[in-house]
Amino acid sequence: MAKELVFGHQNPDTDAIVAAISYAYLQKQLGPDVEAVALGDPNEETAYVLKHFETEAPRVIKTAANEVKQVMLVDHNEPQQSVSDIADVEVSHVVDHHRINNFNTANPLFYRAEPVGCTSTILWEMYDEHEIAIPTKIAGLMLSAIISDTLLLKSPTTTEKDRQAVVALAKIAGVDYQSYGLDMLKAGTNLDSKTEAE
Amino acid sequence: MAKELVFGHQNPDTDAIVAAISYAYLQKQLGPDVEAVALGDPNEETAYVLKHFETEAPRVIKTAANEVKQVMLVDHNEPQQSVSDIADVEVSHVVDHHRINNFNTANPLFYRAEPVGCTSTILWEMYDEHEIAIPTKIAGLMLSAIISDTLLLKSPTTTEKDRQAVVALAKIAGVDYQSYGLDMLKAGTNLDSKTEAE
Ligand SMILES: [Mn+2]
Ligand SMILES: [Mn+2]
Ligand SMILES: [Mn+2]
Ligand SMILES: [Mn+2]
Repeated sequence: MAKELVFGHQNPDTDAIVAAISYAYLQKQLGPDVEAVALGDPNEETAYVLKHFETEAPRVIKTAANEVKQVMLVDHNEPQQSVSDIADVEVSHVVDHHRINNFNTANPLFYRAEPVGCTSTILWEMYDEHEIAIPTKIAGLMLSAIISDTLLLKSPTTTEKDRQAVVALAKIAGVDYQSYGLDMLKAGTNLDSKTEAE
Repeated sequence: MAKELVFGHQNPDTDAIVAAISYAYLQKQLGPDVEAVALGDPNEETAYVLKHFETEAPRVIKTAANEVKQVMLVDHNEPQQSVSDIADVEVSHVVDHHRINNFNTANPLFYRAEPVGCTSTILWEMYDEHEIAIPTKIAGLMLSAIISDTLLLKSPTTTEKDRQAVVALAKIAGVDYQSYGLDMLKAGTNLDSKTEAE
């Protein structure tokens, strides 16, 4: 099987970066040769998360067709939110929690969407369906993405499944999700590192 | 939860009719109030299948918005293949094995697609994920849909997962899928019942 790239949307948030990492890990266990990449650098919140769970930021790409024929999308489906040359590659897999918009394919594909608060919640479910154990660091990353997307389970998009995922992932990662979550959200709004102009 | 209708495409084939019946059964076990309906009468093959597994043909609808606010689509996603007033209802769930085309939503939804030979193969997997037992008659219907869509596992769209589903479903239904499959496919091309003009 030819290599594929896995990535989230432009101007990546924590879910976009982390879902690429965790879906790439899951796919690798199932067989496919994949690499998690990103369409931009981590924001401050995501940088805090990656540092906390000792994970390197994914390589940033500007285009995909120069490297691969097929790609896997996480946390988005709309072409205008995706890699600049999305029209020149085939989308083989999508895992997302947004509405479907302007997403058309020439061939059948794997598409998994659920109306939950975070892509990482769906991925948590998929690890379970495939009976693949989630490594400690990846569980911490996925937990962080759900905390980020749901504002610590307080956003109106939060579902019962997001709550279950947070509890289960916090256990694997070995963190108190309430106190860690507050620190993490604070890091994302860190005024110290902003310039005067902001 | 308000009632929803579950249906396959216009000019229904066996998968379109049967996937509506089996997805409606699965959803009912999970909670939602749903009814399997169809956008047309069963063809000769499907009529043979329904008779063999002692199941009534789903009620035929012309429009959906007069009955429900939300619908679940199986075995299709393209609006032009769906109910005439699809634009007037919200699609809450899709289970399909076709390419995605002209399918846009205003809100997040549940969408499950896989590049396999038949929608009923994906549903077989979903029963397993939810640990819901498949009733004998529904297993027979799902087996028939896979035989129909894959021409007894011989079409180029056939995957390993379709093969596994056929073996598992034949066991639950208690039929020899080779001999039953040939009889079923023969029933679908029954020349006797065609008029002279055809
Ligand atoms: Mn996002
Ligand atoms: Mn997200
Ligand atoms: Mn069909
Ligand atoms: Mn089909």
